[in-house]
Amino acid sequence: MELFLVPPTSCPDSTLPQPSDPPRSPWWTLCHLSHHGDQPKSPLPRSWPGQVSRFCQEMTKGKNYALPNASWGPDMLSLYHEFLEKTKTSGWVRVPSFRSNRDHIQGFKLPLDLSANSDKSDWRLFTRCIEREGQGYEYVIFFQPSEKKSICLFQPGPYLEGVPGFVHGGSLAALIDETFSKTAYLSGEGLLTVNFNIRFKNLIPLGSLAVLNVNVEKIEDQKMYLSCVTQSRDQQTVYAKASGTFLQMHLEKDSSRQ
Amino acid sequence: MELFLVPPTSCPDSTLPQPSDPPRSPWWTLCHLSHHGDQPKSPLPRSWPGQVSRFCQEMTKGKNYALPNASWGPDMLSLYHEFLEKTKTSGWVRVPSFRSNRDHIQGFKLPLDLSANSDKSDWRLFTRCIEREGQGYEYVIFFQPSEKKSICLFQPGPYLEGVPGFVHGGSLAALIDETFSKTAYLSGEGLLTVNFNIRFKNLIPLGSLAVLNVNVEKIEDQKMYLSCVTQSRDQQTVYAKASGTFLQMHLEKDSSRQ
Repeated sequence: MELFLVPPTSCPDSTLPQPSDPPRSPWWTLCHLSHHGDQPKSPLPRSWPGQVSRFCQEMTKGKNYALPNASWGPDMLSLYHEFLEKTKTSGWVRVPSFRSNRDHIQGFKLPLDLSANSDKSDWRLFTRCIEREGQGYEYVIFFQPSEKKSICLFQPGPYLEGVPGFVHGGSLAALIDETFSKTAYLSGEGLLTVNFNIRFKNLIPLGSLAVLNVNVEKIEDQKMYLSCVTQSRDQQTVYAKASGTFLQMHLEKDSSRQ
Repeated sequence: MELFLVPPTSCPDSTLPQPSDPPRSPWWTLCHLSHHGDQPKSPLPRSWPGQVSRFCQEMTKGKNYALPNASWGPDMLSLYHEFLEKTKTSGWVRVPSFRSNRDHIQGFKLPLDLSANSDKSDWRLFTRCIEREGQGYEYVIFFQPSEKKSICLFQPGPYLEGVPGFVHGGSLAALIDETFSKTAYLSGEGLLTVNFNIRFKNLIPLGSLAVLNVNVEKIEDQKMYLSCVTQSRDQQTVYAKASGTFLQMHLEKDSSRQ
């Protein structure tokens, strides 16, 4: 399977490497590809239904980690079913979650620099790195296409510990980044994190339920700006506030496979 | 085992919850404890040798994950031995890394709110959540007490994937946060992350070596400000730049155990 990431027009962020930087930079290579015009371009964004349905298609093989398992507590389960109802009535979409991003975006091409190390099979999306149910990340993302927002239900297991008994700040940051990433891609092909900021307000007890509320704030100059408020289910405790910027790119179909 | 976290004087950060916030907030509880003066206080910082040697003592039982294993590549191993030499000649300290922070800070007390869920034994520090050697986080931190800086050698395994073949931005953020945390504690009992910011410059190939260069920039009003530049061993590629703020607290000895 190959993937292809290409920015739509240019790479204007001054924080990104410029041509004087070392030429082995994948970022620089990505930007340079579009400047050279040696890869096909297409206008953004694509239509919602196609993009969302393509990404969110259920695979017949491979485990979908976004489905309930025996480790999910009553809070997680009841809110899950509440949002599942909204997929039937309010346009929400349950985002499937596979072992690797390779499973989500099959049949697309990746530049040479991004094809490195793709000869092995046991790769895992970081937030699905702990296989045993209930020990690590238990989460499911619901996406609302018309409002460009997501909800992520997160039940942290005991392998995500920082301060004894509580979630490691880094594990929350990683899940917010992952939820940003999926939301940015589904909302307008935002694909790679440019920057990420998080302010911690309260510690999350391991085993409890935290709810991530993600919004696309704006899309400008091929960049997407997202925000996230993480709080308890009853919204009485704010755990963290975060923001992130993603670079818009899109995946080109691998014509050699058609 | 009990722990006790207490801020030295007050909790001045306006981003932290105030007394009008819900009373179940661990942050608020922590701050409020010192306001009430119902817990012992002592001046900061403690003397370096005691603090560092106490934290960095080698345990006779339990695996120390900061030691080389068969998965470490030549780059990781050679730089490890380079810094190991510096522990003999230049005052650097190799920071041991155990399965849980509970193993690092034994015999200390935790407020009631932070004692929740401490009745089970299978907790893991998030950055040590993947047991199988070479699959997840392989890293070791060296700390330089007199200069208040650290180096973290990081060899990411295939379970830390984001873009296929490359490190998930969230997994790098989590390790930087963890290295900040250990550095902040050893440099002046900075213990809990207040905020964290990261700018991504280049993708890190899985299986390669990344070097995190962490510095304490300043200590002011019971807060510690840290920076991190993550780059390739030859310093030709900058992967990310990060900053973080930590709240100074200190662990009180559990007198009931003495």
